[in-house]
Parts: sequence; structure tokens; C-alpha cells
Amino acid sequence: MAEHSVQQGFENDLTLIANIQKHIELDQSDIAYIKSMISIKSFKRGDLLLEQGKLCRQLFFVESGSLRAYNLSKNDKEATIMFAIRDWWITDMYCFANQKPAMVSLEAIEDSKVIVLVFDAFQRLLQQKPKFERFYRILFQNAYAREQLRALDAISLSTEERFHSFSIKYPEIAEKVTQKQIASYLGVTPEFLSSLKKKIGGLKLS
Amino acid sequence: MAEHSVQQGFENDLTLIANIQKHIELDQSDIAYIKSMISIKSFKRGDLLLEQGKLCRQLFFVESGSLRAYNLSKNDKEATIMFAIRDWWITDMYCFANQKPAMVSLEAIEDSKVIVLVFDAFQRLLQQKPKFERFYRILFQNAYAREQLRALDAISLSTEERFHSFSIKYPEIAEKVTQKQIASYLGVTPEFLSSLKKKIGGLKLS
Repeated sequence: MAEHSVQQGFENDLTLIANIQKHIELDQSDIAYIKSMISIKSFKRGDLLLEQGKLCRQLFFVESGSLRAYNLSKNDKEATIMFAIRDWWITDMYCFANQKPAMVSLEAIEDSKVIVLVFDAFQRLLQQKPKFERFYRILFQNAYAREQLRALDAISLSTEERFHSFSIKYPEIAEKVTQKQIASYLGVTPEFLSSLKKKIGGLKLS
Repeated sequence: MAEHSVQQGFENDLTLIANIQKHIELDQSDIAYIKSMISIKSFKRGDLLLEQGKLCRQLFFVESGSLRAYNLSKNDKEATIMFAIRDWWITDMYCFANQKPAMVSLEAIEDSKVIVLVFDAFQRLLQQKPKFERFYRILFQNAYAREQLRALDAISLSTEERFHSFSIKYPEIAEKVTQKQIASYLGVTPEFLSSLKKKIGGLKLS
């Protein structure tokens, strides 16, 4: 894993703290405690935060920049599984929760500042500060709901509708990532996506 | 919603209690409290527990039997989204968490006994007994992990590999549901699944 810098001093205005405070109240001691459990790392575009096949020890939170998780199949086919932008949490949850080798790689798709919570610190945080059980219950409940919606979309919508739905739900991601990455996320070729976008463009004009 | 019987007395050996005790310890007062928050309902094969388009107020736990969630598209195409058997929790999580009309229907695919926790009781349970935050944090973390795995499978595996993966992960479900329901879950026609099973059978023999 590339780690271009590790900051020891923390800003007071971490997006992370605001993110947690969306769901639970934090006092100064809570904030100090969580800051003692995390590290902030900077990654350059193209750096890997997590490598497929290596033990998945970390839960990530994007302070700035954006990330992409992808799986490389036996026959070298790359599939984009998910994206994460500022204010999003991301990891390979099954492998993190069960401390197994990751099934995806996680790369910075632009220069990014990322907060890292390793598994032991995550467990300690939950034990020492039970209010974080509530925070992560809500976080995972929402994440589960989002994945259910996605499964529903994948089964019930056409590629055109899925592209439209993706662009509406995640306009910031749709803007940031390449055509190739969105195509890989939708499970189509970049050429197919390109013809689809032209078709949609055409429909808009008509 | 069809409700064929509502039991007021509770057995002491509810699968629900054992399910919760996998993750948190319960004392007699916790058990009494949770029993006061739930209802147990019996459904006949084919009964709907939840109807697409109606407010999704309930979180369900399967004591016995099995359930199937499906979405009916505008053009009347039915897609199976998920199954649940004994000892599983199920709902349309996005619509439950946000108290919106369900995007799926939930039907009993055999005679089933189901525990129902309505949204208000769920919220009260979390407020009155914070240890349930931990239980549902773990439940939703696992559910999220499972959905991530499924998204990975959907993108990276062939239909044959997905059918194989489904049969290995959920042998009890694969046994209980019809060919048509599995085909609908995999997003293929029953005829395609049938030819696939014959092909796999042929491969096994060769």
C-alpha cells in the first residue's frame, strides 16, 4: 500500500466528525477518543489503498477525493464494484468483518485524503464508546438498504435505465469518473455506454 | 395482508431469541421486553406479508417456513429479489428505514410462522434497550456484506457460476424454491436455467 504522508496533527473541522454527528451526538471526549483511534493518509491518483488478495484490515472514510473498488477476475476482466467520494465510508465489508483477504482492490481515482480505521481500533471503539454501535447500526442499515436497491435495479432495469438511475442518484460520482469506469460498473463495454449516451442525448434533443 | 392467526402466548423456545443471542446476551427482562414488542403471525403458502406500493412498516423474522421478495415491473415482469428461510430477517430495508411504500412484495412460499416487528416498536426497542443497537449493527453489517458479495457475483460471474454459487451458499433455499423462482432470482428464463442444470449435470457425469 502506498502511503504518501501520515499526518499526526488533526484539523478541527474533519468531515468525519460531521459525518458521525449526523446520527449521534459527540462531546469533546468522544471526539478526542475517535481522533486517537484513526489515522489520516494521503493518496495520489492511481495509488492502491487496499489490494485484492491481501488481508482487509481497514475501514475507510473519504475526507476528500474519490475512490473506486474493483475486482480482477481469473481471466483478468476488471469489474468496478463501487465508488466512494467525500463523506462516504467504504471497505470490502465481508472481508473486513471476517478479517479475510480482500476480494477487491481499492484505488484513488484522484488525489485523496482518507481516514483509516483498522479493525482492532473499530472493535475497541465499539466496546469503549457504545454510542458508536448506534452510529454504525444506522450506517450499515443505510448501506444495506442501498445495496438492496441496487440489486433491484440490476434485476429490473435496462442498462439505459440503470445508467440514468446512477446519474441521478450519484451526480458527483458520474462527473468524476471516466466513461470506462462507469461502463465497468454497469457491466457493459465503454463503446456500448458511449452509444447509449449518444442515444439518450438524441432523445433529449428530440 | 392476510393474517391467518395471531398468537398471544409465546413459546419459550423462539428461534428469534436464539438468533439474537448469537450476538448479544439477553437476560429474562430483555426477553420479556422483546416479546412484548413483537407479534407472531401464521401465513399460508401464497399469502402476501407485504404488498408492493403499500407502506413498509414491518421488519420480519422467519420462525418457520420460507418467504420470497419480488418486484413487479411496469410491464408486469416479475423479478425475485431475495429469499428468507427459518432464522433469517427480511424486509424492504430502504422503505422500512424511511417509512416509504414498499418496492417489493413479500410472499410465503410455504406455510410460514413469522415474527413481526413494526417500525415504531423497532425504534422503541433501540431506545429502551441500547444493547439492541449492537445486535442490529452486526445484523446489518452482515447483511450489507452479503449484498456486496452478491453485487460482486452479479458483475463478475457467469449465470452458471452464479447458480453454482447460490446453490453452495444457500442449499436450503435452493431445495425449497421452484425452478421458476430461482430463474427469476438469477434474471434468466426457467428454460435457460433448465438447460443450464442439464449442462451442469452432464459435466458432472463426464
